[in-house]
Amino acid sequence: MTTRSVESLSWRSIADKRRIGDGLRRVERRLAECATAYPGVLAEAGASTLNAGGKRLRPLLVLLCARRSASPTGALVHAATAVELLHMATLVHDDVLDRAELRRGCPTVAYAMGADAAVSVGNYLLARAFSEVAATDSGPAVDVLSSVSLGLSEGEILQMEEAYRIDLREDEYFRRCEAKTAGLFEAACRLGAMLSGCAPETVAAVGGYGRALGIAFQIFDDVLDVRGDESRTGKRLGVDLRDGTVTLPLILALRTRPELGPCFAGRPAAEAEIEALIVAVRASGALEQAHSVAVGYVDEARGCLAGCSDEIEVDLLDELAGSVVDRFS
Amino acid sequence: MTTRSVESLSWRSIADKRRIGDGLRRVERRLAECATAYPGVLAEAGASTLNAGGKRLRPLLVLLCARRSASPTGALVHAATAVELLHMATLVHDDVLDRAELRRGCPTVAYAMGADAAVSVGNYLLARAFSEVAATDSGPAVDVLSSVSLGLSEGEILQMEEAYRIDLREDEYFRRCEAKTAGLFEAACRLGAMLSGCAPETVAAVGGYGRALGIAFQIFDDVLDVRGDESRTGKRLGVDLRDGTVTLPLILALRTRPELGPCFAGRPAAEAEIEALIVAVRASGALEQAHSVAVGYVDEARGCLAGCSDEIEVDLLDELAGSVVDRFS
Repeated sequence: MTTRSVESLSWRSIADKRRIGDGLRRVERRLAECATAYPGVLAEAGASTLNAGGKRLRPLLVLLCARRSASPTGALVHAATAVELLHMATLVHDDVLDRAELRRGCPTVAYAMGADAAVSVGNYLLARAFSEVAATDSGPAVDVLSSVSLGLSEGEILQMEEAYRIDLREDEYFRRCEAKTAGLFEAACRLGAMLSGCAPETVAAVGGYGRALGIAFQIFDDVLDVRGDESRTGKRLGVDLRDGTVTLPLILALRTRPELGPCFAGRPAAEAEIEALIVAVRASGALEQAHSVAVGYVDEARGCLAGCSDEIEVDLLDELAGSVVDRFS
Repeated sequence: MTTRSVESLSWRSIADKRRIGDGLRRVERRLAECATAYPGVLAEAGASTLNAGGKRLRPLLVLLCARRSASPTGALVHAATAVELLHMATLVHDDVLDRAELRRGCPTVAYAMGADAAVSVGNYLLARAFSEVAATDSGPAVDVLSSVSLGLSEGEILQMEEAYRIDLREDEYFRRCEAKTAGLFEAACRLGAMLSGCAPETVAAVGGYGRALGIAFQIFDDVLDVRGDESRTGKRLGVDLRDGTVTLPLILALRTRPELGPCFAGRPAAEAEIEALIVAVRASGALEQAHSVAVGYVDEARGCLAGCSDEIEVDLLDELAGSVVDRFS
């Protein structure tokens, strides 16, 4: 395990390609305009959510999946801004549901301004996402965003319904991964390809890439929740365990250590139990297994690129998939 | 004050016109499909929100503002469903923010299933609204819905920022009315006219009608919060006063009875203070004044219809405006 910064060098090098870098800067300006357009509490919350950073991975996917000959302006920038706004909205609402105090080392909107303000701020960001995608003037693009937005809210509800269910199956876990994370990755990729006029086969192929990469990303993230270093991720450890979210590491650990289940079943565990559970899951080998599963999804993502013509940034997408593995290793 | 049912006779008679009645039944079926499409908590929450009823006033506006020659199917039904879903989403989220226990005499989602579930259910309904409007295949329709959705979240935030501000000005109150209520009335009217191919002047005229009617509706509603009969409205009295929302009746009452302010300024009032405040606002004459202001907006709404050709249901829209006054009288 290395201690490189959240933005891996490889990742940065992709964003440094001039065309992509120009696009990302335009997205960043547009995000700032959208998030701070409204005065008062909202601009404050929007600015703090923006400034907390984030990798802008979803906008990057939009740009990388667009035809190289397409200028990273107009509809592409609107779509890239829309997916990031939708992602931000989800984070702001998630922090209400999870009662999280920190995100990326900064106080969450829910913690700083209260749950009520965070619900409204999230709604505002969601509405902005739709107004951005409407600005693409593409009906299919609006469809993509509304489907993924439905999936996101279904994912939130699944997470609630499945809390503390120690009998959760892997397929149920993967279904939630798709709804919560992979859907938006897939949408970002498809939007980039669609809006720049790629062939339908390319749109489908990058969609598959995004979906598989998104699942990998979620698994890595769930591994980090047990294995991570709080000073590096800016997130508290064991958040999932505390709020009852059953993730792949726990599912795999329970397979060899079923006696870990009862302290977690059906109810919040005591703090000492959570800490013991973290130690036990780490010792069970489940983190290494979950990591391998995630690497398998990264391979699947790379495999999807074989179906893409080189009119899009195939090499950079391949490099990006690799850098996701590096980042979490 | 009469004790007629929430759905006034006159209102029902409009919905009974065959073409409009057919359209409303299609919207009702589509709403049921959308709200219960997803199993578990969501279908339960969706069904209870739907079954709690509601007047379907916004879908009715979509249908009445459409050309008479347009069949109440397809895009019109999608748009009418979308505005009602957006309205439902707002109610579900509002009940989280207001900590309301009852709506239309039924337990709110927030009360029955918890604030967390209500945030997700609201998000789901919001996403569904956008997927419905996307199904109209009209970019301008998506624009209308995303603008109004932005306005709604701005309205929520205004309400939070302006809580307990006894120095709130009337113009600030009206700005919030537009964002919270009138925007969606206006959007419903515009969507009906736009999607059925009305001339731009008609779209603008019905938009003005919807806006003015929406402001009147909000004022009437705010009057009811002080004057209403809990057994009739199904809502607890004084909800606005309890959560610090400064409405027109209070603004007007404070003008003649400034000594009422301090018990309300900057903080939640005690229950006995709220009850005394309700009695004092009722005695101040402010309810009658606010009622007159609302009637003025209804007149403005009716005036806008002069700019409409009779290709749309001008007479029924005029009747509807009148029935709103009756309903609240």
